[in-house]
Amino acid sequence: MAVRKGLKPKHFIVDVDGVMTDGRFYYTPDGKAMKAFGPDDHDGLLLLKPYLNIHIVSGDKKGFPITQKRVADDMKMRLDLVSTVERVRWMEESGYKPEEVIYMGDGIFDAAVFDKVGYSIAPANAFYLTKKHADFVTHSAGGDSAVAEACVHILKKFFKPFDPLDFQLEKSSGEWASKK
Amino acid sequence: MAVRKGLKPKHFIVDVDGVMTDGRFYYTPDGKAMKAFGPDDHDGLLLLKPYLNIHIVSGDKKGFPITQKRVADDMKMRLDLVSTVERVRWMEESGYKPEEVIYMGDGIFDAAVFDKVGYSIAPANAFYLTKKHADFVTHSAGGDSAVAEACVHILKKFFKPFDPLDFQLEKSSGEWASKK
Amino acid sequence: MAVRKGLKPKHFIVDVDGVMTDGRFYYTPDGKAMKAFGPDDHDGLLLLKPYLNIHIVSGDKKGFPITQKRVADDMKMRLDLVSTVERVRWMEESGYKPEEVIYMGDGIFDAAVFDKVGYSIAPANAFYLTKKHADFVTHSAGGDSAVAEACVHILKKFFKPFDPLDFQLEKSSGEWASKK
Amino acid sequence: MAVRKGLKPKHFIVDVDGVMTDGRFYYTPDGKAMKAFGPDDHDGLLLLKPYLNIHIVSGDKKGFPITQKRVADDMKMRLDLVSTVERVRWMEESGYKPEEVIYMGDGIFDAAVFDKVGYSIAPANAFYLTKKHADFVTHSAGGDSAVAEACVHILKKFFKPFDPLDFQLEKSSGEWASKK
Repeated sequence: MAVRKGLKPKHFIVDVDGVMTDGRFYYTPDGKAMKAFGPDDHDGLLLLKPYLNIHIVSGDKKGFPITQKRVADDMKMRLDLVSTVERVRWMEESGYKPEEVIYMGDGIFDAAVFDKVGYSIAPANAFYLTKKHADFVTHSAGGDSAVAEACVHILKKFFKPFDPLDFQLEKSSGEWASKK
Repeated sequence: MAVRKGLKPKHFIVDVDGVMTDGRFYYTPDGKAMKAFGPDDHDGLLLLKPYLNIHIVSGDKKGFPITQKRVADDMKMRLDLVSTVERVRWMEESGYKPEEVIYMGDGIFDAAVFDKVGYSIAPANAFYLTKKHADFVTHSAGGDSAVAEACVHILKKFFKPFDPLDFQLEKSSGEWASKK
Repeated sequence: MAVRKGLKPKHFIVDVDGVMTDGRFYYTPDGKAMKAFGPDDHDGLLLLKPYLNIHIVSGDKKGFPITQKRVADDMKMRLDLVSTVERVRWMEESGYKPEEVIYMGDGIFDAAVFDKVGYSIAPANAFYLTKKHADFVTHSAGGDSAVAEACVHILKKFFKPFDPLDFQLEKSSGEWASKK
Repeated sequence: MAVRKGLKPKHFIVDVDGVMTDGRFYYTPDGKAMKAFGPDDHDGLLLLKPYLNIHIVSGDKKGFPITQKRVADDMKMRLDLVSTVERVRWMEESGYKPEEVIYMGDGIFDAAVFDKVGYSIAPANAFYLTKKHADFVTHSAGGDSAVAEACVHILKKFFKPFDPLDFQLEKSSGEWASKK
């Protein structure tokens, strides 16, 4: 669905596995041991932060300690454990009007979330049926800057285009030396 | 071979390495340490479960503890160690009529299995000769949702198409919060 | 160079990194920790074994314990540490006539080896200049069955084509349950 | 920008993540645990060393111990921790005239660096906006020989083309047995 008339997006809700990662679950005999996060996504989200409330969600319970380390501890982003099939209800309970939400997801059940939110984005590697239901599909895959590309797209479509030769970082730019 | 006339598939037998993983064996000096499983496959198999008996097989003895952790412990799927060249005999001994089996594999010796079963599926990354013998080749590669795509294909071809905007999960859907 | 007239290949000499692996060196703060080997290559080499002497070479000293574990211990293949720029001399000193050698390599310096051997093969991911000097470039990349594809190519070109529906494994086929 | 008239490049400054690696940050619950470096890049840089001062820079503070192990300890290259947005100032403070610098980077903020240096190179996997600002984009991706390809390109464009059938390695070529 296209953005509903008269509504401005207020929130960017982003799935983790396959969106901020390459989607792989690296297993040892002891279980899920590793995930692979990609470049640029943290930078892209920081560019978007002045305009939207950013909230990261993951449905992966067993791998949540890995996700927490990356997203909550290192990127200092808000993170919650919410399964895909409960996300629309969770938005409503959290006080997010779905029609004010830009949502990015990749999984087999994400089309049902796309159907309810204001604007939906899928990375290039998303499940093939899911991509058909997205308002925008990035050229980049999860773990290869898909979220950064989505952020640049959102800035251009809803706010102020990112100019790579003329941009300003927030005061918190002291963090850039440790940004990844 | 196409599905034999008058026969309904009863079983979905799925290989592990290169089908549910990206095919890589991550080695340390101590041996095979890690495998990379992908997104959506568990979800796809759960959608198929009401229709078919699902059985996972792997020929990888040294990496079997990793496979067991993912497939048996975390996904709660039935799993056996069976080398590719023994799989047709194993089906027969297990009481599975090969012509009632849908089989998904990727390896250099899998064409001989494809030749005996009712319907055969290869992921995009399968060995090039093997793909020529498959009834269906997914667009996705192993570790990138190939099994999920196969499940959606099977649902459409033999049972009831998956509608991403109107589907129901089993009662066991309490598991979705930890589904990956 | 094409195979020299009147000469039959006697040896298949295969590089490791980028040919039997995806070329990546997975580093921790303690150094080179992991390499990613692919599917089918072991199987392909076993099909070729009745026809050619197979010898694996690696120039990677720091990662050699990883390579030894995979190639020597698990695959039971002959393995030596030989830098790319010394490989032609090493062949001669080892009693291998270079013109009787089929050599597979991917690196920036491998073209100079290709120039001296009887027949040369590069995987799809080989350095772009190197591929221009190869007699055959596989469609598959290292770590994605490139060696297996090379083996099937060699069987067809020099010996007896592999028929995936009619092949026999050596007596040692008891190993197939642990083949990877 | 093209190379400024009358200026010869004196320095090759190379970013790490996404340029010398595949860009992925492999995370465990304990944090950034692994990076994946690629083949050929070390070899390519050694070919370029007689012509240019080579300096590697990374903005990744949390992963710096991994980068140090690979770049400083194993490759014996000069390495500094400098965030992307401070790199032009850092060049000036280090006595490097930006117009004498060839710079290779991939990130969302690298276009601003490209704008100030003499010649800029991006790997195939660079952020899509960044590639539009590069003087040269390699066909290879980071972690798949992008730096080696850049080195061969630089040799041809500014110095003496690399001939894979006729090249000489420095006296330090004793290192080739441990080159990776």
